Amino acid sequence: MLEQLKEQVLEANLALPEHRLVTFTWGNVSAIDRERGLLVIKPSGVSYKAMKRDDMVVVALESGEVVEGDKRPSSDTATHRALYQAWDNIGGIVHTHSRHATIWAQAGRDIPAWGTTHADDFYGAVPCTRRLSDEEIAASYEWETGQVIIETLRQRDIAPHVIPAALVHSHGPFAWGKNAEQAVHNAVVLEEVAYMALFSQQLAPALPAMQQSLLDVHWLRKHGSNAWYGQKN
Amino acid sequence: MLEQLKEQVLEANLALPEHRLVTFTWGNVSAIDRERGLLVIKPSGVSYKAMKRDDMVVVALESGEVVEGDKRPSSDTATHRALYQAWDNIGGIVHTHSRHATIWAQAGRDIPAWGTTHADDFYGAVPCTRRLSDEEIAASYEWETGQVIIETLRQRDIAPHVIPAALVHSHGPFAWGKNAEQAVHNAVVLEEVAYMALFSQQLAPALPAMQQSLLDVHWLRKHGSNAWYGQKN
Amino acid sequence: MLEQLKEQVLEANLALPEHRLVTFTWGNVSAIDRERGLLVIKPSGVSYKAMKRDDMVVVALESGEVVEGDKRPSSDTATHRALYQAWDNIGGIVHTHSRHATIWAQAGRDIPAWGTTHADDFYGAVPCTRRLSDEEIAASYEWETGQVIIETLRQRDIAPHVIPAALVHSHGPFAWGKNAEQAVHNAVVLEEVAYMALFSQQLAPALPAMQQSLLDVHWLRKHGSNAWYGQKN
Amino acid sequence: MLEQLKEQVLEANLALPEHRLVTFTWGNVSAIDRERGLLVIKPSGVSYKAMKRDDMVVVALESGEVVEGDKRPSSDTATHRALYQAWDNIGGIVHTHSRHATIWAQAGRDIPAWGTTHADDFYGAVPCTRRLSDEEIAASYEWETGQVIIETLRQRDIAPHVIPAALVHSHGPFAWGKNAEQAVHNAVVLEEVAYMALFSQQLAPALPAMQQSLLDVHWLRKHGSNAWYGQKN
Repeated sequence: MLEQLKEQVLEANLALPEHRLVTFTWGNVSAIDRERGLLVIKPSGVSYKAMKRDDMVVVALESGEVVEGDKRPSSDTATHRALYQAWDNIGGIVHTHSRHATIWAQAGRDIPAWGTTHADDFYGAVPCTRRLSDEEIAASYEWETGQVIIETLRQRDIAPHVIPAALVHSHGPFAWGKNAEQAVHNAVVLEEVAYMALFSQQLAPALPAMQQSLLDVHWLRKHGSNAWYGQKN
Repeated sequence: MLEQLKEQVLEANLALPEHRLVTFTWGNVSAIDRERGLLVIKPSGVSYKAMKRDDMVVVALESGEVVEGDKRPSSDTATHRALYQAWDNIGGIVHTHSRHATIWAQAGRDIPAWGTTHADDFYGAVPCTRRLSDEEIAASYEWETGQVIIETLRQRDIAPHVIPAALVHSHGPFAWGKNAEQAVHNAVVLEEVAYMALFSQQLAPALPAMQQSLLDVHWLRKHGSNAWYGQKN
Repeated sequence: MLEQLKEQVLEANLALPEHRLVTFTWGNVSAIDRERGLLVIKPSGVSYKAMKRDDMVVVALESGEVVEGDKRPSSDTATHRALYQAWDNIGGIVHTHSRHATIWAQAGRDIPAWGTTHADDFYGAVPCTRRLSDEEIAASYEWETGQVIIETLRQRDIAPHVIPAALVHSHGPFAWGKNAEQAVHNAVVLEEVAYMALFSQQLAPALPAMQQSLLDVHWLRKHGSNAWYGQKN
Repeated sequence: MLEQLKEQVLEANLALPEHRLVTFTWGNVSAIDRERGLLVIKPSGVSYKAMKRDDMVVVALESGEVVEGDKRPSSDTATHRALYQAWDNIGGIVHTHSRHATIWAQAGRDIPAWGTTHADDFYGAVPCTRRLSDEEIAASYEWETGQVIIETLRQRDIAPHVIPAALVHSHGPFAWGKNAEQAVHNAVVLEEVAYMALFSQQLAPALPAMQQSLLDVHWLRKHGSNAWYGQKN
């Protein structure tokens, strides 16, 4: 069942240690089959070295029930489900504790758009959520983690494909994309810009956001309706 | 004698350079056989590349005498013995000079709990000891290093399995666990959170500790009596 | 056509990930055949792993037209053309988003000459351009990126072989040299001195530029008319 | 001639990139045969990958003349000769531009003794020289670089085996030892403590030097007349 999607999710998960985004098992990728209402996600606490295609767990988008797989799904599954339910134009989600994105999340700060590396994939500052309330944590922690991401983008009027990542306060980054591979791409870029922004601020403590015109030209040439970057095929 | 434990201690020692926690021979792992009152520890100053199972040294917990092995045990053996004697629920100990944990130790500061990466394995700030007195250093330096760790946890009412690491002032980190492998795990996490906390503070100089409720949910789901994280088997 | 130059450009491009200067496809190298008025440049958005000699694109220096190659040239081709047109003594150009050079570019700051590592290849501070105007970005962004580099060196009276790199504000570094290999060399040195300068300033916030006499002896022994560094052959 | 010493010097030079202390050819190691008054040193500007035993150059300690070898010796040869002439108890010397030691050198600051990692091999702060005068640079730059290191240790009453390294202002580190291998060891430790000290100060801007008693116990157990660290054989 969903063998091709499982393969994509496996490969996307294995890309995390290759890009040095994870320590131990601290990361997970999922992807969704919208027609069937099923998502495929990494099992909880399984090492990347041992991970196989058939360890991937199939979960029902609406109910959260495990539909296939003899392992337990990632502890963050409810967060993934919340995002897929809210945003019907995303196909893959990544969560990591990558060092520098997590540093901004721990500091509770947005990552400002300070250069074209950022602008190529994020059309503005990457937002950090508020802290969850004690009630939200007690009630349904992983689900509410998804809800606070959704709330943050809504309140700032950000469409998820325009800034495909967010930081959860005191926790770490989530990134997404049209599929698992693109979500991993965005998680890698996020870590890169998080590193650069940390030390850009050290050099220039009062640095303003980059020019809107420069943000426009970089983001739009890759992601706008007239995008032309890369090869056509 | 204790072949299986020696093998575990060897593998745990070899994991230190794999996780980039040590330079040269600056690290050591031990494990204990409680029934026999014997601990197995890395030999002093032997390179990780050349290290073999039978280089591991068997030492009597109470007397500190070498019971088996033709090499001298780690210079930190007395520190390990002190911790095993004080805490009967730990089975493995690691000492390293991993860069970022050592930076906090040199600065004489606790590592605050600033995120879920920390909360997953450390149930609060990782404490840094006071400086040893000149008398303690002169009398029995390595043994007193263990005693000041024990004193630090006692004074703050911390059970060793709840925060399984401490920083020794002007020196570096010790971490422990139910066995050697878990102790290494905790040493890796410690280095990771030490890195993140260093730069979280740079971004947010007056950052308060994370919420207690968030600390609770992360630590308890992995280590509480109702822990459910990971696979059941 | 230009098989040898294509091979050099391919190898220089492949040197970028080896030196850890690029993530994904974020970098490009070109070289020029002055007699024919043709430059060879990396294709846009092609991964370094898959890149082959015949993927290199041949572009006319004056018109910017693709003369050979079935792939689209790098999106930065117009910047390369502007620099080759302005400076007839350079033979290769590199653009990257290497982390620390980009950090200075994002901060909008020159990299001061603070040591002999810098002085060996850069005869003074590496300049950072002004921001481009909205008009320049709207009119011809990549071409104007080249023009602002040229303007910056002219206004400061810097000959391009004397300081063979510049930072583009809110973007990243460009480096050049007599050929593609030397341009990559300079891009590597630039990243190295960018890292060191970042933390030299942290240690000494009011650090003045290094002595002119020391800058002289280091740069001149490698690049002056009486250069003697290295082997004669 | 001196085949064994050449082999040691080759291996010590190759250890520099293994320990990530050098970029390109920016480092050199030498060793001395005191009886013959000859030193063996790396050739100038030769890549580590291509370097062979017979590329090592034999130089007369007193005159500086090349006695054997068809390559030119390192541009820093005169600095090495100055140190060997001044200190008859050292047998090997290393120069690198390792990132963090160079950062302290560029900032013109001593590296304080802030922990046991430092104390194990350096019996106090690693000193940074004054700037060379313009006259010294013009007269005999590489020779005067050695002289200012010697002057710095003399003025502070430091014996070279007690603190086996120094930073040259606006330049980088030199380290030494009883042979080439030990000199490389000290260069590695120097880079490690330079990194840690940089960020220890970030965490604790007014950090005092470590206790003398702790410095004593660590340095003396490895280097004192009653040293006992490591294995006996």
